[in-house]
Amino acid sequence: MDYDPDNIFARILRGEIPSTRVYEDDDTLAFMDIMPRADGHLLVIPKTPCRNVLDASPEQMAAVMKTVQKLSHAVMKALGAGGVTLQQFNEAVGGQEVFHLHVHVLPRYEGQPLRPPGKMGDMTLIAEQAEKIRAALD
Amino acid sequence: MDYDPDNIFARILRGEIPSTRVYEDDDTLAFMDIMPRADGHLLVIPKTPCRNVLDASPEQMAAVMKTVQKLSHAVMKALGAGGVTLQQFNEAVGGQEVFHLHVHVLPRYEGQPLRPPGKMGDMTLIAEQAEKIRAALD
Repeated sequence: MDYDPDNIFARILRGEIPSTRVYEDDDTLAFMDIMPRADGHLLVIPKTPCRNVLDASPEQMAAVMKTVQKLSHAVMKALGAGGVTLQQFNEAVGGQEVFHLHVHVLPRYEGQPLRPPGKMGDMTLIAEQAEKIRAALD
Repeated sequence: MDYDPDNIFARILRGEIPSTRVYEDDDTLAFMDIMPRADGHLLVIPKTPCRNVLDASPEQMAAVMKTVQKLSHAVMKALGAGGVTLQQFNEAVGGQEVFHLHVHVLPRYEGQPLRPPGKMGDMTLIAEQAEKIRAALD
């Protein structure tokens, strides 16, 4: 399958679309999901093009998972989450909506199921959570 | 958090509990989930101890994701899946039930939502699916 260089996450990487960034390094970017299924829900993506896990290189996967691990610790510390659920979707049938590899990091809290998908979050609240996560990374 | 060497997946690795294996290499094992949420639902685990993504080494993560990628292609080819959903749970609050790192590979089919969790599968059907996945790997 082809990679579309104008997908939303490619545009976020180029700064053409705003996002609430919490972390980046040479190979990856982590930013807040604007439809959070849990407080602190974030996405980790590689900076280089690939569609999903099916066409990712070993280097892309390693870089993404390293950042996923780092951010998992950070959201637990920052927001008091007791665990983390990871979700990753491949191809439309597999639940993928944006065709640039991304891993969902979903902080989990005692007694709180994930919220249903597809509902816009409160951007002020999201910005506050992002600030806490950034602080926990320092 | 500690690693319990008598968790179910450690016992599967040691051959003390039966499993329907579909693939293994020096570092990882892939076997069928006995409570499949989709046809061909399988689990990929490292052969060395770690609890989950929070304490996994870069080498363990890389090896697991390499096998996840390989098996994702195999289930799509073997069973005609159009995509794959990955899920990975960390700590009890995060949905984890067996405390040895594992990634769920869920083959997805057009128009078929995932089945609810926690229901035992038909072991004959699971064995047939495993055989098809093994054949697709050759």
